[in-house]
Amino acid sequence: MKKLETAPYKGVRDFYPKDMTLLSYIFSNWKKVVESFGYEEYSASPLEPTELYAAKTGEEIVNEQTYTFKDRGDRSVTLRPEMTPTVARMVAHKENELPFPLRWYSVPNVFRYEKPQKGRLREHFQLNVDLFGVDNIEADVEVINVAYSILKKFGAKDSDFVIKINNRKILGALFDSLKISKEKAHKISKVIDKKEKISPAAFETAIEEYAKGKTETLISNLESNQVLIQTLGNDHGEIVKLMKLIEALDKEGIKNVSFTPTLMRGFDYYTGIVFEIFDTSEENSRSLFGGGRYNDLLDIFGKRKIPTIGFGMGDVTLKDFLETHDLLPNYKSNIIIHICVITEEARDYANSITKNLRENGIKVSIDISGKKISDQIKYADKKDIPFVICIGEDEVENKILKVKNIPTHEEKEVKEDDLVSFFRM
Amino acid sequence: MKKLETAPYKGVRDFYPKDMTLLSYIFSNWKKVVESFGYEEYSASPLEPTELYAAKTGEEIVNEQTYTFKDRGDRSVTLRPEMTPTVARMVAHKENELPFPLRWYSVPNVFRYEKPQKGRLREHFQLNVDLFGVDNIEADVEVINVAYSILKKFGAKDSDFVIKINNRKILGALFDSLKISKEKAHKISKVIDKKEKISPAAFETAIEEYAKGKTETLISNLESNQVLIQTLGNDHGEIVKLMKLIEALDKEGIKNVSFTPTLMRGFDYYTGIVFEIFDTSEENSRSLFGGGRYNDLLDIFGKRKIPTIGFGMGDVTLKDFLETHDLLPNYKSNIIIHICVITEEARDYANSITKNLRENGIKVSIDISGKKISDQIKYADKKDIPFVICIGEDEVENKILKVKNIPTHEEKEVKEDDLVSFFRM
Repeated sequence: MKKLETAPYKGVRDFYPKDMTLLSYIFSNWKKVVESFGYEEYSASPLEPTELYAAKTGEEIVNEQTYTFKDRGDRSVTLRPEMTPTVARMVAHKENELPFPLRWYSVPNVFRYEKPQKGRLREHFQLNVDLFGVDNIEADVEVINVAYSILKKFGAKDSDFVIKINNRKILGALFDSLKISKEKAHKISKVIDKKEKISPAAFETAIEEYAKGKTETLISNLESNQVLIQTLGNDHGEIVKLMKLIEALDKEGIKNVSFTPTLMRGFDYYTGIVFEIFDTSEENSRSLFGGGRYNDLLDIFGKRKIPTIGFGMGDVTLKDFLETHDLLPNYKSNIIIHICVITEEARDYANSITKNLRENGIKVSIDISGKKISDQIKYADKKDIPFVICIGEDEVENKILKVKNIPTHEEKEVKEDDLVSFFRM
Repeated sequence: MKKLETAPYKGVRDFYPKDMTLLSYIFSNWKKVVESFGYEEYSASPLEPTELYAAKTGEEIVNEQTYTFKDRGDRSVTLRPEMTPTVARMVAHKENELPFPLRWYSVPNVFRYEKPQKGRLREHFQLNVDLFGVDNIEADVEVINVAYSILKKFGAKDSDFVIKINNRKILGALFDSLKISKEKAHKISKVIDKKEKISPAAFETAIEEYAKGKTETLISNLESNQVLIQTLGNDHGEIVKLMKLIEALDKEGIKNVSFTPTLMRGFDYYTGIVFEIFDTSEENSRSLFGGGRYNDLLDIFGKRKIPTIGFGMGDVTLKDFLETHDLLPNYKSNIIIHICVITEEARDYANSITKNLRENGIKVSIDISGKKISDQIKYADKKDIPFVICIGEDEVENKILKVKNIPTHEEKEVKEDDLVSFFRM
């Protein structure tokens, strides 16, 4: 028989217990912060009808980057490449029953058929946070505050990242003032979205294709906020709203904010405010995550519009960020005690000690290998379990246990009756 | 434009926040129990190479019940229908580095292309618990004890379920003693596995096909443990071992155990002990979950054998069981307080109160809808948030807050400085 490969499928990850500890740490911080803001968890299957993504996700992603296949009933199914269409579908499905505003979050895995590279895998986890049903600055501030608070929770300093903010409507107003048609404006937006990935000359050439004769004016507006504000007027409605938002964020203590008119975000469904958080370090100066306001997405289900703002934050880029800024936690085993069994005669007593600790919520493993005692202790050490208790005839007789702290080499005698409270301290 | 459907893909579930609360309750109890036994969490992608399942999962499942498709690189990929091949692959991949025994668990979603019906969906979650590297009764007892302790944790009584146990080797010994060939024995095993699903007459006919002339003897052995033990002799090695296991379980307080020689379990990879937990209620008298010992599975990767025992427990059947026995918890919101804002002038103060509660780990939402105050309170009530605090000019001035308990209609005045400790009680 041919021997099977043991590596995982290309571009996805196996999480061994140590890897899982880090992933759980990330999930746990995500949940703590978003729940402290009153957000509730939802979830859905990664299997979705393909048509869900056809309308608004963007052609490139759907046609070239999804896992799409026919099921045995000849339905076209896609493994979700992002969560937003799913959550919009769920809200649309029960829009009459749900009490708005909804503060919802989820931690789905999402799939993209991409060439695996740093920060990009074929499957990753993504915190999704959305606030449905409110279209005002308070809502925008709250959602950006959630994003900000998460990075702070992981120990990031304000100087480690910058929050770039834009409103797509500002760019729309600029196009209008330059008398650029809607159709061309859409094309130009796509070019602007790619600005950081191409050379200034290539950028200029690409713009010129759709903004013949207006390229210089357009670029000078995109490159200087002052010029842009002058063009539109500082009493322009969208400019005023954006300034108010930045002021409100400042009042919440969020000061690492930068108005960036060229910030587009890839998805077609954004209708107004977009924001994106960038790492400020030189080694990892890349986009970490972002989001924005999408007020019209429920249209695709034939439902009333529900104004929404949200963002998605991936585990892979976050982990790179934490690594870059030396914010990864040290590994700690979940298991607190390993019980070693010196003689088989002592097993029943060892079992009863184990059971009592366990029933008091203490995470404990017991040796069942029957190996010699030094190997049992070595095993606990290898697994980074901090405490061992060896149980033999003496312990059975005296009901006094020697608790050994492996990292510090300390040993302490504890009476059986005091064991639970000893570990609860 | 065609309006999209809002229902999920057939046979899978959307988890709205209330559904999610129940799922989280199930996950949380699973984790608490398995971690108290010293088990560590691992995880992997649902995408696996199809060949991983070809060897041991069973033909029917692979050929008719999986989601299998070609990726854009023409590799055949399967959405995992079960977790055991994945965990075996992971262990095989690092067998030289991992400190055995391994106590591992995971809570994957698994996929089957089945006709959706009660207790069977196309995707469900399944706790997987495995103990790698030990082949003795202590290991068997521990894993069965984990399964038992989980049901107890959910509030089940011993009388609510029975743990049926068998050892495939006992049936093997019976076939040997009746001089039935290995090949026919395998076919008969498959028939026995289906025993509960067909009529006694059909069962007899099916057996007769492979055990011509020996059907009556075979069935009488399968139907009576006494007859079986007499046939093999009560000093037969496998019988002795099984009796010791049942005795050891009894010593751990696990008494609802029944030796059931016809218990087979579907997968081809089991090599010895198998067990399956059945609901004893009349309304829901079905298999809940099960597991067994698979000592040879790493063979398929060309690695040394690592003796393993484990089980898988699905969320859908568990939920049905909890429902049947009235063990489902009442819904409780994760959010403790909703802050209502009476006038916009009070918003800054309301924000500061909210921020302080939040930073002290209390889950709190704040109104940003600007609706009238009675609607804000109604909203909290609809969402089952137990406490509301309404903040207006009086509160801004006096720094005294009225904490209203919605379910009890109690109201209490609390000073701003005492608010955190009030909710921490």
